[in-house]
Formats: sequence, structure tokens, C-alpha cells
Amino acid sequence: MQTFIINSEGYNVYVGNSYGPLQTFLEEKKYAKTFILADTNTSEKCLPKFTEKLPLLKEYDIIEIDAGEAHKNIDYCIGIWKMLLDFGAGRDSLLINLGGGMVTDMGSFAASTYKRGIDFIQVPTTLLSQVDASVGGKTGIDMDHVKNIIGTFTNPEAVFIDTDFLYTLPRRELLSGFAEMIKHGLICDSGYYFDLQSNAMGSVDNAMIFHSVNIKNKIVLEDPKERNIRKALNFGHTIGHAVESYSLAHDKDPLLHGEAIAIGMICEAWLSHTKTGLEESALTDIKNFLLAYYPNYRIPEGAFAELAEFMKKDKKNEKGTINFTLLEGIGKFVINQTCTEEEIRQALVLYNGLFK
Amino acid sequence: MQTFIINSEGYNVYVGNSYGPLQTFLEEKKYAKTFILADTNTSEKCLPKFTEKLPLLKEYDIIEIDAGEAHKNIDYCIGIWKMLLDFGAGRDSLLINLGGGMVTDMGSFAASTYKRGIDFIQVPTTLLSQVDASVGGKTGIDMDHVKNIIGTFTNPEAVFIDTDFLYTLPRRELLSGFAEMIKHGLICDSGYYFDLQSNAMGSVDNAMIFHSVNIKNKIVLEDPKERNIRKALNFGHTIGHAVESYSLAHDKDPLLHGEAIAIGMICEAWLSHTKTGLEESALTDIKNFLLAYYPNYRIPEGAFAELAEFMKKDKKNEKGTINFTLLEGIGKFVINQTCTEEEIRQALVLYNGLFK
Repeated sequence: MQTFIINSEGYNVYVGNSYGPLQTFLEEKKYAKTFILADTNTSEKCLPKFTEKLPLLKEYDIIEIDAGEAHKNIDYCIGIWKMLLDFGAGRDSLLINLGGGMVTDMGSFAASTYKRGIDFIQVPTTLLSQVDASVGGKTGIDMDHVKNIIGTFTNPEAVFIDTDFLYTLPRRELLSGFAEMIKHGLICDSGYYFDLQSNAMGSVDNAMIFHSVNIKNKIVLEDPKERNIRKALNFGHTIGHAVESYSLAHDKDPLLHGEAIAIGMICEAWLSHTKTGLEESALTDIKNFLLAYYPNYRIPEGAFAELAEFMKKDKKNEKGTINFTLLEGIGKFVINQTCTEEEIRQALVLYNGLFK
Repeated sequence: MQTFIINSEGYNVYVGNSYGPLQTFLEEKKYAKTFILADTNTSEKCLPKFTEKLPLLKEYDIIEIDAGEAHKNIDYCIGIWKMLLDFGAGRDSLLINLGGGMVTDMGSFAASTYKRGIDFIQVPTTLLSQVDASVGGKTGIDMDHVKNIIGTFTNPEAVFIDTDFLYTLPRRELLSGFAEMIKHGLICDSGYYFDLQSNAMGSVDNAMIFHSVNIKNKIVLEDPKERNIRKALNFGHTIGHAVESYSLAHDKDPLLHGEAIAIGMICEAWLSHTKTGLEESALTDIKNFLLAYYPNYRIPEGAFAELAEFMKKDKKNEKGTINFTLLEGIGKFVINQTCTEEEIRQALVLYNGLFK
């Protein structure tokens, strides 16, 4: 299996058979102690494979947390901090985050703030975390159902993407990650978007994951702190994050991140059509593609006000307005667009109307 | 009143009449919202003076927290995050930390992690925070009585030191800050140390505060992330922090930071005498100077094991040993010294023996 290497801000992302570079990394760094953060799923399904392939990693402590986005909160983060403290983690320790975005986001936040920062590496095990959370240096936890409201910008020492982990994933999780790959195509690579359409899900391979990580990495390198063009990555996320927060707060089996972002992309494609010149045919194409793969999630009219409240708390907002990234065409984004609450309401009504 | 300006890592520290520069700063930055973090003391004693001198600052929200180092914890930090969220703070908001080290440390940690970082300025109101917490970019909160165990390295936009605030301080608080000034002399400026001895406390003026901030700033600029020479500033702090943590955990009226550091400096001066060549006459001079100003705090023998546990959790430790900064002479530090638990025990016994 070929290994792709991407250089990001002072660290490497390895895609494919990344255990060789990881062994070398551990040999060179000689950490005094190593900790592996996993959730109940990855502890069972990924950890044995991971440690089997790393014979050099003989001594480590495991910090296991409950799986699920709902646990990406300060209480679990305090738990991680206390485990690190009780097990004697020092600045010469390493934290390995083995899991999906919940584990990599919260683990990296915990590491970036414990003793004012210890080294960590990301070993993302879901498609979503491989193509999205793995690069960009964003760490974070949720609070009051607001996504990633507490966090830092801190880079890992390296990212090791083993695409074999994807075989352990249910289809729903794969689709959640696939939504972010579609987004990468929609914002800046129309050819990639149509490739994804024709290959859809039958063949998510290393090259496609590499392509998505590469798109994200290029954007992040230009604007690490999200002052301008990094906002491109937020297409579908203003409404999508609000829908995700709403679902986390109310549903027993909440939407996955990518599922919520798919809804957000449909709504924001409609806003793009009405406001920034996305052609009707492109809007139809996006709607049909996404509706074919993602759940029909009815958003009650009574929830619109609550969704608007979540949007107002979004990190990208300035001067009290709600900030959007929209499309001028497939593969062409435009940042810093504002929409009124009435326009947002119309987009949600339109989405609900798609599967009457 | 003369204003001294110190350039630190990309920001300025103003000492003296700093309201002119602060007005200019606010005019230029045009923050969408401004928040002032104060504790119950500074809210009463400093906030009215502060806002009176800033006629331009018309609209702001006040976040008030209970005074006292015991409240520099994650629960209060969550309270600050939630207030910022509920009051609609965005990345275009400013947090002004008006208070002692508890407020400036925790406020800057909260700001550095809220929405992955919003701007903050420090307006330190105690001598300790003016000469110590004001520069260096260290943010932090305590956990399980371990000092600043959670935090980040994040610089403020600026630091505005108004030495008039010192008139509101009880003598005990002044002495707490004075201990850090003595430390500055001990580690790298023997002339300053003897000046402080002869002027002691009668005349802590702007020039002396400027001198101390300048010493700290020079060290921090060389080594912002505390990989090597910044550890100089930890003289007295390995034992001092442990004594402070112990006192916070057990005493109704716990030692102030500087009081604990004074004890730490006596013990570590003794260790310096036995291990790194500090002359007996210098040791005697340091002991006499500190004992004349700081409380005689008896540390029960039964507490030594607990103190050792705190020291083992210190951020500076590597490879499981307890790390010290010691003196080779007055004004000459040496970093990365290790001491055995028995040596530490002897130092504490010696300290207890000083006021039998």
C-alpha cells in the first residue's frame, strides 16, 4: 500500500500504511510516557490492531472514554486531565488520540492545555476524522450544545491515517465523512465533486482521502487562524452545525456530523442560488446527490427560533450578523455572506418541502 | 507621572499612567463588545477608578467572580465561558482582566480558549500581578490543588499597569508581590536585590516595578515556552508552589503566593548552599531578609509526604525527577537541578528550625 505524505504547518500527515513513519517517530522522540486516548468503540475495534502493528510501543496507559459526540464536553475533558495528572504525565509525555473527531478534537484540546501543552498525535479512525479533523490544528469541546465553542489552535506532532480502520465502520459513519469530501469538491474542485458522484461510496480509497486532506491542507496553510479563506471550509456548516446542535439536544439517536452538514449544504446551496448566483441546474444536482445518500430529517417549524439562536452563537459571526460561506458555482466559494433570519427560515422550509 | 513602555512578544506593557495608551488602543481596535472580568474586591475598589479614567469605554458587560486563589478553578472558568456565550461575545470582542493574578491568569485562560481565542488585555491591580503575571503569556487555572496545571501560552494584546491601584492594597498583599521582586534580584541582578533590601517596602515605585517587569520580560523573550532559561523564574517555586498548594488545601486563611514563595526561596537557598555553591554568608543574608518580612509558617513533619506529592506533579519535571532552579550566588541562577526527597526534607526541617 502506497503511503502519501502531506506537509502541513510544521508537521506531516501520513495517509496509507503509516506505521513505519509512526515507529520512526516514536524511536526518535523517546517520550518518557505514552498515553492512548480511545473511546469505548475504538478501544475494542482499533486499539488491538494499532498496538499489534507497533511492537516498539511496549508501555502505555489507556484513557478510555464513552463514545458519542454528546460526551465531547468539559466533564469528560476534566476526566482526561485528571487521568493524565494521576498517571504522572509530564511535558515529556505523548498523548495518542485514537478515534473519530470526538476523540481527536477533545484529546487534542486536553493535551494542548494540560501543563500548558504536551505533545499529541492524531490517529483518526473514521472517514470523517481522516478527511476533516486530521489537519488544521483545531481542537475543541462543545458547551451548552454549541459545537467546538471552547478550544485552541494547536498542531499535532503528526497525523497517521490508517485507511484500514474504515473497514470497521458502519455505512452510516462512512457517509458522515463522505459529506465533508463532497464539500471539498463543492467549494473548490468541481472535477472532484463529479468524480465523487460517479464513484460514490463504492470506492473511497487512499487516493481520494489524500485528495480531500490535500484540499483542506492547502486552505488551512493559507489561513490557519480562520481570518478569511479558511472560512471556505464552513460551507454547509452555519445551518449544519445548528441542525446538529438541535439534534444533539433533542434526539435520542442524534444526527451524525456529516448528516447534519448534508442538510446544511442543501439549505446553503439554495441560499447560494438566491443570493450568490449558483445556477438552478447546479442547485438541483447538489440536492439530488445529497438526498440520495442522507436521511430525510424533518425540522419542525417550531424549532426554527432555536436553530437561529445556535447560529447566532457561531464562532464565525461578526458584528452580530450570521456569517455564511456560499457558492457562486460548483467548485467556487464566496465567504462572509450574511443572510437574514427570514432567508434562513425559507431555506429550512424548502428543505422540509423536498420530501413531503 | 512618567509612563514606561516595555516591548514584549508582539505586545506592549505600559507602566505608570497607562490610560492614554489604553484609550488609543480601544479607539483603534473598535471591538464589537467589551467585557470586564473583576473579582468581588477589584469590582468594588478598582473598577470605578478604571472606568472613570476611560470616558470612551461607554458600553461594557461586567463578569464578577468571587475573590481568592481557591476560585481559580475550572468551575469558575466554565462560569466565565458561559457568561461570554450568553452575552454574545464573538471573536471581535475584548476581555479586560482587571484584578490580581487569579483574575489575570484565569481570565486569560478563558479568553484564550473561548471560540479558540478572543483578544484580552491585562490590567493587573496587585503588586504581585504587576511584576509577575503581567508579562510572559502564561494563562492558567488550578486543579486538585495543583497550581496552573491547566493553561496555555497566549499573549495579551497589551498590559496596562496603573501603580495607583497599589494604594488600595493591604500590606500583606504588597509583601506578596515584593517576594517576586526579591526573586528577580536573586536570580539575575544582585544590585537590584540589595537596593530592594535597603529601600524595602518603603518605596515600591514605578521605576522598581518597571525594573522587575523588564527582568522578567528579557528572560521570557529568550525562551517563551520555558524550555530552558525561563526556568530561572522558578527559583523558590518548586517548594514554594507545593507549600502554597498544601496551605490552600488545609488552611482556613491560606498563605498568599508570595508568602509561600518566600518560604520556598529560603529552602531553595539552603539547597543552593549545599549543592550549587551559594556561599554561607549569602544564605544567611537571604534568610534574614525574608524572615524579617514574611510569616513564620510551621510545616508539620507529617505534611512532608504530601508536599513531595505536589512537587512530583510540577510542570517543570522531566523523566520523573523533581526539577529545581537554584543559585550559584546572589544574582546567578542555575537551572535543571535535581534534589532527592531526603534533601528536600532536610530543607523543610531547616526552615522549621529557623523560628523555634
